[in-house]
Amino acid sequence: MTERHRDLDFDLVVRNGKVATASDTYRADIGIIDGRIAAIANGLPTGKRDIDAGGRWVMPGGVDSHCHVEQLSGMGLMCADDFYSATVSAAFGGNTTIMPFAAQHREDRVRDVLEDYHARAVEKSVIDYAFHVIVTNLDEQTLNEDLPQAIRQGITSLKVFMTYERMKLDDYQILDTLALADREGALVMVHAENNDVIRWLGDRLTERGLQAPKYHAIAHCGLAETEATHRVVTLSRILETPILIVHVSEAETLDCIRQAQQKGAALYAETCPQYLFLTAADIDKPGVEGAKFCCSPPPRDERCQGAMWQGLMEGSLSLYSSDHAPYRWDETGKLPKGEKTGFREMANGLPGLEVRMPLLFSEGYRKGRLTINEFVALTSTNHARTYGLYPRKGTIAVGSDADLVIWDEAREVTITNDLLHDNVDYTPYEGMKVTGWADTVINRGRVVVENGELKVDRGTGEFLPCGLPEPV
Amino acid sequence: MTERHRDLDFDLVVRNGKVATASDTYRADIGIIDGRIAAIANGLPTGKRDIDAGGRWVMPGGVDSHCHVEQLSGMGLMCADDFYSATVSAAFGGNTTIMPFAAQHREDRVRDVLEDYHARAVEKSVIDYAFHVIVTNLDEQTLNEDLPQAIRQGITSLKVFMTYERMKLDDYQILDTLALADREGALVMVHAENNDVIRWLGDRLTERGLQAPKYHAIAHCGLAETEATHRVVTLSRILETPILIVHVSEAETLDCIRQAQQKGAALYAETCPQYLFLTAADIDKPGVEGAKFCCSPPPRDERCQGAMWQGLMEGSLSLYSSDHAPYRWDETGKLPKGEKTGFREMANGLPGLEVRMPLLFSEGYRKGRLTINEFVALTSTNHARTYGLYPRKGTIAVGSDADLVIWDEAREVTITNDLLHDNVDYTPYEGMKVTGWADTVINRGRVVVENGELKVDRGTGEFLPCGLPEPV
Amino acid sequence: MTERHRDLDFDLVVRNGKVATASDTYRADIGIIDGRIAAIANGLPTGKRDIDAGGRWVMPGGVDSHCHVEQLSGMGLMCADDFYSATVSAAFGGNTTIMPFAAQHREDRVRDVLEDYHARAVEKSVIDYAFHVIVTNLDEQTLNEDLPQAIRQGITSLKVFMTYERMKLDDYQILDTLALADREGALVMVHAENNDVIRWLGDRLTERGLQAPKYHAIAHCGLAETEATHRVVTLSRILETPILIVHVSEAETLDCIRQAQQKGAALYAETCPQYLFLTAADIDKPGVEGAKFCCSPPPRDERCQGAMWQGLMEGSLSLYSSDHAPYRWDETGKLPKGEKTGFREMANGLPGLEVRMPLLFSEGYRKGRLTINEFVALTSTNHARTYGLYPRKGTIAVGSDADLVIWDEAREVTITNDLLHDNVDYTPYEGMKVTGWADTVINRGRVVVENGELKVDRGTGEFLPCGLPEPV
Amino acid sequence: MTERHRDLDFDLVVRNGKVATASDTYRADIGIIDGRIAAIANGLPTGKRDIDAGGRWVMPGGVDSHCHVEQLSGMGLMCADDFYSATVSAAFGGNTTIMPFAAQHREDRVRDVLEDYHARAVEKSVIDYAFHVIVTNLDEQTLNEDLPQAIRQGITSLKVFMTYERMKLDDYQILDTLALADREGALVMVHAENNDVIRWLGDRLTERGLQAPKYHAIAHCGLAETEATHRVVTLSRILETPILIVHVSEAETLDCIRQAQQKGAALYAETCPQYLFLTAADIDKPGVEGAKFCCSPPPRDERCQGAMWQGLMEGSLSLYSSDHAPYRWDETGKLPKGEKTGFREMANGLPGLEVRMPLLFSEGYRKGRLTINEFVALTSTNHARTYGLYPRKGTIAVGSDADLVIWDEAREVTITNDLLHDNVDYTPYEGMKVTGWADTVINRGRVVVENGELKVDRGTGEFLPCGLPEPV
Ligand SMILES: [Zn+2]
Ligand SMILES: [Zn+2]
Ligand SMILES: [Zn+2]
Ligand SMILES: [Zn+2]
Ligand SMILES: [Zn+2]
Ligand SMILES: [Zn+2]
Ligand SMILES: [Zn+2]
Ligand SMILES: [Zn+2]
Repeated sequence: MTERHRDLDFDLVVRNGKVATASDTYRADIGIIDGRIAAIANGLPTGKRDIDAGGRWVMPGGVDSHCHVEQLSGMGLMCADDFYSATVSAAFGGNTTIMPFAAQHREDRVRDVLEDYHARAVEKSVIDYAFHVIVTNLDEQTLNEDLPQAIRQGITSLKVFMTYERMKLDDYQILDTLALADREGALVMVHAENNDVIRWLGDRLTERGLQAPKYHAIAHCGLAETEATHRVVTLSRILETPILIVHVSEAETLDCIRQAQQKGAALYAETCPQYLFLTAADIDKPGVEGAKFCCSPPPRDERCQGAMWQGLMEGSLSLYSSDHAPYRWDETGKLPKGEKTGFREMANGLPGLEVRMPLLFSEGYRKGRLTINEFVALTSTNHARTYGLYPRKGTIAVGSDADLVIWDEAREVTITNDLLHDNVDYTPYEGMKVTGWADTVINRGRVVVENGELKVDRGTGEFLPCGLPEPV
Repeated sequence: MTERHRDLDFDLVVRNGKVATASDTYRADIGIIDGRIAAIANGLPTGKRDIDAGGRWVMPGGVDSHCHVEQLSGMGLMCADDFYSATVSAAFGGNTTIMPFAAQHREDRVRDVLEDYHARAVEKSVIDYAFHVIVTNLDEQTLNEDLPQAIRQGITSLKVFMTYERMKLDDYQILDTLALADREGALVMVHAENNDVIRWLGDRLTERGLQAPKYHAIAHCGLAETEATHRVVTLSRILETPILIVHVSEAETLDCIRQAQQKGAALYAETCPQYLFLTAADIDKPGVEGAKFCCSPPPRDERCQGAMWQGLMEGSLSLYSSDHAPYRWDETGKLPKGEKTGFREMANGLPGLEVRMPLLFSEGYRKGRLTINEFVALTSTNHARTYGLYPRKGTIAVGSDADLVIWDEAREVTITNDLLHDNVDYTPYEGMKVTGWADTVINRGRVVVENGELKVDRGTGEFLPCGLPEPV
Repeated sequence: MTERHRDLDFDLVVRNGKVATASDTYRADIGIIDGRIAAIANGLPTGKRDIDAGGRWVMPGGVDSHCHVEQLSGMGLMCADDFYSATVSAAFGGNTTIMPFAAQHREDRVRDVLEDYHARAVEKSVIDYAFHVIVTNLDEQTLNEDLPQAIRQGITSLKVFMTYERMKLDDYQILDTLALADREGALVMVHAENNDVIRWLGDRLTERGLQAPKYHAIAHCGLAETEATHRVVTLSRILETPILIVHVSEAETLDCIRQAQQKGAALYAETCPQYLFLTAADIDKPGVEGAKFCCSPPPRDERCQGAMWQGLMEGSLSLYSSDHAPYRWDETGKLPKGEKTGFREMANGLPGLEVRMPLLFSEGYRKGRLTINEFVALTSTNHARTYGLYPRKGTIAVGSDADLVIWDEAREVTITNDLLHDNVDYTPYEGMKVTGWADTVINRGRVVVENGELKVDRGTGEFLPCGLPEPV
Repeated sequence: MTERHRDLDFDLVVRNGKVATASDTYRADIGIIDGRIAAIANGLPTGKRDIDAGGRWVMPGGVDSHCHVEQLSGMGLMCADDFYSATVSAAFGGNTTIMPFAAQHREDRVRDVLEDYHARAVEKSVIDYAFHVIVTNLDEQTLNEDLPQAIRQGITSLKVFMTYERMKLDDYQILDTLALADREGALVMVHAENNDVIRWLGDRLTERGLQAPKYHAIAHCGLAETEATHRVVTLSRILETPILIVHVSEAETLDCIRQAQQKGAALYAETCPQYLFLTAADIDKPGVEGAKFCCSPPPRDERCQGAMWQGLMEGSLSLYSSDHAPYRWDETGKLPKGEKTGFREMANGLPGLEVRMPLLFSEGYRKGRLTINEFVALTSTNHARTYGLYPRKGTIAVGSDADLVIWDEAREVTITNDLLHDNVDYTPYEGMKVTGWADTVINRGRVVVENGELKVDRGTGEFLPCGLPEPV
């Protein structure tokens, strides 16, 4: 047997799948050796193990590039998921990679922060992960030593906040961050909401004794998002440096993004399930029930939902992430003061790692808004490219990691929190019916989820150093 | 040896290529059996024949979806290329499929027209081909019998003209065509220029004795294109039926296209080399030299060039075709009255089948405007998808036709007409330097071009019935 | 007594008014000599007659620049008002000038048409009038002799239709008309709807047996208007010649108008009461009741209403006319076949001469959308300027015709057809409550309406030759 | 002689003028009694004094609503003109009212500031004046006592800065100011440039040793203006409170303004001579010569000039002010360090009170871009209305102040600093030729300038309390 023949002794063959990538759809077997895709062909020889996809979709495992895990929030609350529960939940949702944040707080050194997150992730994760770093302190050491070093070590996306007192940078600091990113080869991600607007409106509501969850959506008004987005996009245009706007929710924000893109700006933008499947009406539920739907920015109205879909369809929004920010509906998260919790006291954020892909598959692909290839691009490929993980992640191609999800497109599921594997005690999508669910999830050739069971141990996920971000 | 093993006895293996598709880039061997791609892997066993790509790009063969071959023009002139010279020239330019037009003239029956074009193509073509049908007479038989039959037979794109006295349809007829396309599963392509504007401006120029080629560009003013585009796009929005605008050249037309796309219109648009690499200044050359650059719509100015690039980069223009309309610079084409030929008497159209891909590779990919994947999408994949040839054509995937071009990205070429294989006696790109050229061209596993030589016989290309057009 | 003193022997003094012009508001007396305003001052000496305005508004008499009087419609129906009833109705509505159309039909000579309309108007009109000429036949004599002569004689606005089989011009003819207008000093007005769209949709509805009035609004869809507007605006941009779009109704049409205006186009646009105060829901009334609300273009929805208000407020729509097109709700107009009348058989058009000003005063000025000066501009001054009647008409200034309306801003009126003076047997505004109504109407110093009575004889109105149109 | 007759014993009659207001043009005499316009008529009786306008234009005296007089700049420099030199210069330029700023500095009480400015103005001004107040400290007393009191005393426009370290407010404070203005009936004016952008770019230039004046224009980049404008416009849209953007210079800023206006925002905007008649090329002159052209925002390029003209023509820019900010080209202003003065050390601002009207008359009215009525609106009426001085100021109407300029439209003047009456030692418009100049200037019936001489004493100008701002 020649050298070449030996290459075709597969560890695993996923057979008879309907393969979908960001651009292609075809039927083939996928042969895996040493955790990577070694061959795509019809009629591959039997591997050490064979899985019969039985005509189901075989797609690149999801890459969820925006989630919060074991992180202190902008308000100082620890979120409910650690790297174990988060990666397990992600895996059951069809994902093989997550990209949480390593969050610098004002007093932290970035190198310490990264060391800390690495230590926690490495022992708990069941799928692969990469990090963005949240930057809140731009002193000399951060700018000139720690961030350049972090970038060289594969943390190539820098997240900045324009709101939250504990996190926000001013425009001068954002310009510093953009210039650094340009110099060192990183990408700046932005949470764009105008802090003063939110604070001012919140103060006025508070003065009038208005405390219910729905006032969260009033304080975090759509134009506060549009304003901050326009501002930071303009900063990036001035420096001719790429930028990425996370969690776009407002129709007018999308208009602003399109206008800049059409002027040639290197501008990327993301939206999330909460802006496609929830509205402000959900927040308006009685009592503190609405707290279950509070995130920043908040869900808007149907017009905005329609705009978000249009953005995904036309490509002005190229990323669809969960922004999983898990807080329990109890005193540790949403309700620090129980029934008396005011809208400024609740944790902001919604869980979503596990339902992100099923929701988009069901409402996007099955309802004809998106092709299957667009579904793959939005849930996996574009994330990998945007954050420098491509071609290792995000596709089904020879040489790429064998990260696959076998998807049952006919499975009907009513979402309930019982089904889900995160540590949150509710889901904002409770009761929604979807069609299509992840069957088998494979990460680097390892079967992670199969027959509804987790098949791997904690700590078997790997850290992924990111390379240079590239345009989608 | 099992059944499966036999599948890996390759007729041809293209080895060691840097494979690029519309979404992926990877190194692999490509194994071909019976004209189709059977395997993509590293270290494939030797086939009956092996071609070593030597690290060069291996991409899907170009699909040029807009070219005119053995066709009478809107002005009644026979073009210079027949199916032999056109397909040879296309093949040398890296293409494996062309999509010329079967042109109904007012008095013709569509079924006769198609029979005629089929007969001529089948005996001369060296690569594969599909047809669009140009519709100029919408009588009962055409609408109710011939076109539905043609669509069932795989001619699923209907081209209509808004200008040229011999070709143009009025808005009522275009609505009829759109309704038919919607009903039967076809796509309407439109040459969008306002006929009355062109005629009126031409009459005024003629009255004043202005005859030089440059007046062609004045009569075919940019706003004549914008107007007709806006009109036909609006017709398609009224019927909620997809439409495709060919050869967009004017910046303001692009604005109109984007606005409709953002309103959710199913609107596709194409541009061509002449709008990226030529300008109206070329038409303004002394004497009748300018005739070499006259096409409809004509090249515009640098602002419009920039807009066309932006459109390709952002995706509002998803197709890049040659609009090869070959006329010689002599009395059979450009100069029916020699030096005295007026701008209304010259044949309209430029050759471009062979230079389309090299020009875009050099100026688009190598200069950083486009990724290699965008290059593939714009020259091949999007055409195949848009016209219902995907997945047979337009990609490198298991099961697809083995249509490949091995591309030498370092080869420096100064374009001269001597290099080219069409029947035109000049090229509008004479003297331009490009880097990157097609080395080896493979169609359905047949090596068509290799070492600068044609390797196949006339009549070996095949007709491709098109399926339902799909969105890009 | 000096020469100067004699100038202040007034025929009439309107005393104690709150004067409003397009830019000013002040309290003063207005002294009138020989039908013209001779002095504006406080404390003018007593004239031959004094009218005490008693602190009410004194404004320029309305100029209604779009109305149809004794005219055959595009469908061949004679309208219900002659020059007597129309001018009486207009006068009671606060107007002192109307501008109806002299309509050339295909076989007519413009000079004959004008002679005919002059003859009919001169003997019946009770207030002043000017003419637009509708052009439907552009033969040599019309273009080279009759229209230039008409323009020299003070008919300086040429109306063209893009729809109605008996009236419509093609784009070539519109370009001819624009070029003529530019050469001779006239303004082209356009009824912009795409004829083929309306006809095609109408044919499809008819095929399906759909005949109710509401289908009129479906056939005359908003995008048919937007398309034609974009087209003719583009034609005018190509020739850099001003143009005026009458009766804008659709929000997207307004967007198109703004975009061209911001590119510097000399583009003027009008809207009418039916697009501010009615909607398509009115047409949807049971039986043939909806016919009372059918005009072309038809009333749209609330979003479009809001856009029309915004256009008036921002100035992109500078004219507000009645488009009074009076047809009775009987077999002579709306119901030629009685209850069985189909939507394509009904006369198109609504009466509005008498309610135009009260409706805008009540809903525009009193509800705070418009200033009183904007009200004056929209009902009077802009019309006079746009059509070359300024400064003779459209303002209160020394030397201008003494055309005044004394307006009672507190008078509450419920509109019923009984109140009105035209020959139509219904009003589409039946039952609407408005506040503010014309009290006294003065034309060239003659009291035309006072205490609810007509004070002048038929034939006392004068023809107004128009000068060069000027921008507003 | 009756009571009424006595009203027509005029103090002054301006006879035989071609009167222009914001909406009207007519020939008449203007009779003045007690400083107010008492009568407008032909053939008025002789007054105590008669001035024969001899067919020249008689227009409302200019209202220059943006100028800096005896004010410490944002950089802490005292400007070169006091209330005497400024008002004299303004009067010679055709103005009868100026609106300078009373500038609160961080440590100041608004009431003290106003008292101080009042004291200085009252004894020096030769024409009338009103004040805006610049707000830099929004403590409780300012917000709750001093500003409400100032507004009640007729200072109804509050100016805020988004840049200059000593002046700028943050977004929270701007929201406070907007809310106050809404509550108390004032208008907020904004100097909109992003402070951090300017500072960041300036720091980078300084680091690289780049000091020449031209770097001022690079640091104050166009997008810094667009950003701040978009931001503050969004704040005003959130609170649904009107706002006014001063000194717009950048084309993209205008786009942003139009978009908000078309959404119905109560948004007003101003431009200035420097953005119509100078460009960044002027700043690029050798040595420190360029300092003569440095203001904030700086002059841009020809595309922006074209946009500013378009804005004035279409009305999206409704105010044209001088932004007279007088600094000498010596160590007291432009060159604190002589030839070594860096771009961050120069005083920012240009003189322009005296040339504002001649420049616009010559380039705007005479070149056909503006009608004479638009000229009047842009130089006088719109200012009076916008700032609550109408109808006392800004028009020629019975009851209004007799503020008139008799304008010689044929006078050809080459602008040189020698001609001008301010205290600046250069003019940025040196050598420009204009046609049209103020002949005679009358303020409240007092002849202020005649035959090139000042005819009134210092301290004869009056303070004008402003009323509620109103839309233009
Ligand atoms: Zn966030
Ligand atoms: Zn987040
Ligand atoms: Zn064509
Ligand atoms: Zn073509
Ligand atoms: Zn009409
Ligand atoms: Zn009409
Ligand atoms: Zn300023
Ligand atoms: Zn200023």
